[in-house]
Amino acid sequence: MISLNRQEIEAVIDLPKMAMAVESAYRLASAGKVKLPPVGHITFPERFADCHIKYGHVEGEDSFVIKVATGFPQNSKSNQPTGNGIVLVLSALTGEVCACLNDEMLLTDVRTGLGGAIASRLLARQDAQKLLLVGTGSQIRWQIEAHKVLLPKLTHVEVWGRDTERAELAIRNISNICDVSRATNLRRSVQNADVIVTATGSTEPLIQSEWVKDGTHITAIGADAPGKQELDVNLVARAECLVVDLISQCADHGEVSHALKSKRIDQSRLIDIGRALDNPSLGRVGDKQVTIADLTGIAAQDIAIANAVLDLSSSKG
Amino acid sequence: MISLNRQEIEAVIDLPKMAMAVESAYRLASAGKVKLPPVGHITFPERFADCHIKYGHVEGEDSFVIKVATGFPQNSKSNQPTGNGIVLVLSALTGEVCACLNDEMLLTDVRTGLGGAIASRLLARQDAQKLLLVGTGSQIRWQIEAHKVLLPKLTHVEVWGRDTERAELAIRNISNICDVSRATNLRRSVQNADVIVTATGSTEPLIQSEWVKDGTHITAIGADAPGKQELDVNLVARAECLVVDLISQCADHGEVSHALKSKRIDQSRLIDIGRALDNPSLGRVGDKQVTIADLTGIAAQDIAIANAVLDLSSSKG
Repeated sequence: MISLNRQEIEAVIDLPKMAMAVESAYRLASAGKVKLPPVGHITFPERFADCHIKYGHVEGEDSFVIKVATGFPQNSKSNQPTGNGIVLVLSALTGEVCACLNDEMLLTDVRTGLGGAIASRLLARQDAQKLLLVGTGSQIRWQIEAHKVLLPKLTHVEVWGRDTERAELAIRNISNICDVSRATNLRRSVQNADVIVTATGSTEPLIQSEWVKDGTHITAIGADAPGKQELDVNLVARAECLVVDLISQCADHGEVSHALKSKRIDQSRLIDIGRALDNPSLGRVGDKQVTIADLTGIAAQDIAIANAVLDLSSSKG
Repeated sequence: MISLNRQEIEAVIDLPKMAMAVESAYRLASAGKVKLPPVGHITFPERFADCHIKYGHVEGEDSFVIKVATGFPQNSKSNQPTGNGIVLVLSALTGEVCACLNDEMLLTDVRTGLGGAIASRLLARQDAQKLLLVGTGSQIRWQIEAHKVLLPKLTHVEVWGRDTERAELAIRNISNICDVSRATNLRRSVQNADVIVTATGSTEPLIQSEWVKDGTHITAIGADAPGKQELDVNLVARAECLVVDLISQCADHGEVSHALKSKRIDQSRLIDIGRALDNPSLGRVGDKQVTIADLTGIAAQDIAIANAVLDLSSSKG
């Protein structure tokens, strides 16, 4: 069995190659070629914590992947990471455990960052320059890294956090990647942004529709469990293009679920990201549209990223 | 993170201590003190193979457990084990992965063996001497080991397998544990047995009611997925005592599910094993009764056995 720890995994990360793997995974999932059983879930209510188990198998592939990810928000009180986890790769031919990637959540962060940037590249205006990140968690680094690789024209980067101290810490932690400034007024920064990525644990709308200018693209990745919400339902209803990573999952607990439940939008408006990647006319068709990508995270991404790590690790010896 | 391989785990196995842990787990589960989310399941139909993910958390414990088990029956064609898997222990306080027990299915075999013997000890007649094992898989060894520990009066042991060659191989593999003879006529051996353990992958009844003498106890562990069946429904309907490891799971796909679906028995007759352990008057109350334990396997056992391995491993340094 191959066993890699976080440092060993970090050493082989190659975002351009991994972006191709995640994009391909989205296409395969939308084409129905990935078996994606319901996500496993166990909660620890007294700590507001939970654990998700995402797993799946790409038709015809020799392996399948089980990804365990935990979220314990109270870890932040002791300055420990709130996310943790491990990824297992098993043989789909014999059932043997082939690899144990003890990534401590790194691969979830990387594939989520890449998913966000793939969606932004698909839907943002060609001339987009200003990126606003809303949130201060570990996702911020990977969203910025992935957006830098896939949307190199995004030259102005701002980060907003409800907690000033945590926002400044997050910015210091990524200062080696690119110039980032702290957004002090969320409304004004939203009004100025071309691309907005929301990656918070919020349970109420942070971004109001009237703040958002025409032509803006928003990638919302925070709503990954029931009760979470980052965008005003008016904004979701206003968007001319609503791309999601898995219709059933997003309709259940993604960002779009609130607008669906309040009947502000119909489910027929949701477009699978893989379909939009295959057929860009399903995405943005003009410079005035507001576009939204609602990404809840799917096992197809975990499969792609785990296999990419194993390939990169074996090619580097 | 603690990482143990199969050999390291095998070196610390202590069946009497582990039996106490599994028995305690059954009691806790029946008392509603174990969070047991639905079992995750992914299939590989072209290989008649599957993977189960069992996970859960005992109220108040500092850790929780995720157990992955695969079943690839076609591995037997190349003389490889058909079962495989891995057990993860995570902190219920921080979400960190504390231990990775790369047991290759060993712990599932051990806890299943112990579960079977705990049920047999609870329900068999006090004077039972003759044990018949039906099946030739890896379970046979662990059922015998666990029955030897918990029911030392069982001095006559027979193994029956549909395939003579595999039955003889299974017997050779356990000849170091105790004297075992091969049952050549299933009907006659059933008629003679005091305790029968069925551990096959059968999808049709192997044991007919008319073969079974009064006073016999049967522990059926083969029916762990929809479509599997080892006992005649008349036998299930005839049993005066029907103990199960989890009512909802056994009613869905356990041995008793067939008699329930054909309305030969009512679900109110099923007794949780933990309740019967707490209150033996719910079990056998005379020497003429036929008793059946239907064990589908629950995450509470996996939690107990994983924690026992970590305790034993740490106490042995």
